[in-house]
Amino acid sequence: MNELEFIDYLKKNIKRGKDVIYGIGDDAAVIKYTPDKYLLLASDMLIQGVHFSKDTNPKDVGRKAVSVNISDIAAMGGIPKYVLMSIGVPKSASSKILKSILNGAKAVCKKYDITIVGGDTNEGRNLVIDTAIIGEVEKESLTLRSGAKIGDLIFVTGTLGEGRLRHLGFTPRIKEARTLTRLFKINSTIDISDGFFLDLYRLTTASNVGAFIYKSLIPLSERSTNFKEALEYGEDFELLFTLSVNEARKLMRYVGRYEYPDVTLIGEVVSKRRGLKFVGDEGRIHRIKPRGYVHLK
Amino acid sequence: MNELEFIDYLKKNIKRGKDVIYGIGDDAAVIKYTPDKYLLLASDMLIQGVHFSKDTNPKDVGRKAVSVNISDIAAMGGIPKYVLMSIGVPKSASSKILKSILNGAKAVCKKYDITIVGGDTNEGRNLVIDTAIIGEVEKESLTLRSGAKIGDLIFVTGTLGEGRLRHLGFTPRIKEARTLTRLFKINSTIDISDGFFLDLYRLTTASNVGAFIYKSLIPLSERSTNFKEALEYGEDFELLFTLSVNEARKLMRYVGRYEYPDVTLIGEVVSKRRGLKFVGDEGRIHRIKPRGYVHLK
Repeated sequence: MNELEFIDYLKKNIKRGKDVIYGIGDDAAVIKYTPDKYLLLASDMLIQGVHFSKDTNPKDVGRKAVSVNISDIAAMGGIPKYVLMSIGVPKSASSKILKSILNGAKAVCKKYDITIVGGDTNEGRNLVIDTAIIGEVEKESLTLRSGAKIGDLIFVTGTLGEGRLRHLGFTPRIKEARTLTRLFKINSTIDISDGFFLDLYRLTTASNVGAFIYKSLIPLSERSTNFKEALEYGEDFELLFTLSVNEARKLMRYVGRYEYPDVTLIGEVVSKRRGLKFVGDEGRIHRIKPRGYVHLK
Repeated sequence: MNELEFIDYLKKNIKRGKDVIYGIGDDAAVIKYTPDKYLLLASDMLIQGVHFSKDTNPKDVGRKAVSVNISDIAAMGGIPKYVLMSIGVPKSASSKILKSILNGAKAVCKKYDITIVGGDTNEGRNLVIDTAIIGEVEKESLTLRSGAKIGDLIFVTGTLGEGRLRHLGFTPRIKEARTLTRLFKINSTIDISDGFFLDLYRLTTASNVGAFIYKSLIPLSERSTNFKEALEYGEDFELLFTLSVNEARKLMRYVGRYEYPDVTLIGEVVSKRRGLKFVGDEGRIHRIKPRGYVHLK
């Protein structure tokens, strides 16, 4: 059972309380909150040897742990508020490692006005960090994976293909997400954590649609040399989002005027029957397989 | 730096957002929520080899992971609502283990009307589970570690000394906590997770008071043979709480009538100057040292 299958299993087997608007299956859970806001909940675990190496600076690990969480909240159109941090750390040198992790986490939290409200520390053979984040979103700003509509245009923020290079130092796209949801009617969003193709697959599956993606439109990073890796490796933490043609026109006029946010049109949403296709060199059409970083595959 | 020192470091170094009523340092963080309620946030990490062995049934691990979380909410007088579960699991046999963990967690969640709203799954060499819980509490029901007053009487729920035996199958004291906070003015509460002496030390330190505990009053489990271990081992997950003499009288009349909740008077709160003392056999007075399960000591 890989991660995708496990999430399916969870979705089918978990009874949802009446205040849970959306449970398992999006970047964050959506919970009833105030009359005009929802609460957002998400958690992410980073394990030494999987998400970082034993030589990674613990400060970078702390920074990444919180940033990954923030990216989940960005994908929902929300604002991050509180973080819980549980850390398992080898006994030797634990003090130095804990402080470094915390300093990395604190730096990110300060930037986004997030409070670390608690957590847990433990001995473990391997360094492991789990962060849970609590955010909020105005009801009208909420963006889900499941809202893509046939005819929507598909955009990404930033560039793809630097996941391997900047996975410890990426900037979660909160500012971009907030601008986008404030000014435009965004139909669906996901963050690219496990690979463009895989996360596109998740978004289109949740929305029950297909998509055409044009290779020539993909904003490949100048520092990336491997197209295939750029679309399958993940850890870009850019946002993939869709909106109607009319809204997309407004967005492109806005971008033209303010040179912000940095977004690129890369494709269009089609019917599920037409599938998930990648239009490559000389117009050759490839079927997209949900390749990417599937944990426990 | 052990866990206590790390928490001190955190408390001194974390800037608190304006909506954070109490941050690090209690069983759960307390956050502004609705006009009459607070939000409660806590997380706990369980690591194979520390909190359970490699032979432990994964179902019991899942059950424990959520129960430990619930116990934190009980200590605040609150109601558990939502759980996020992050799991790191060895690749081999991951499917079976994940399902078992989930089934254990689900059973507990069902009992307490909690929804598992999300989480994360990853490969890890060792099994590790981190659960974050979100609860709520009516403002007037909130109980903190820091509210003990000189002259208060000190009680515990249930019996002590079965931590080693029942740490996988204990019942978090939600029902008891809710009855207590609804009917009596409880001044302070903590759950006994890391050992009676250590958690008593935490409560009295947070309240800036001392305490006298009487050995002859301790409700030692019939299944426990080692008094010292019973008070230092932890994992009882009973509640330790204090209330004024007047409220304690009301509580004891109530218990006399309904034979519920199962609580025992074990001591009294004194001034900090008089210290933390254990009155043992033949009235001999011992100084209580904060011994217990201090992680990373």
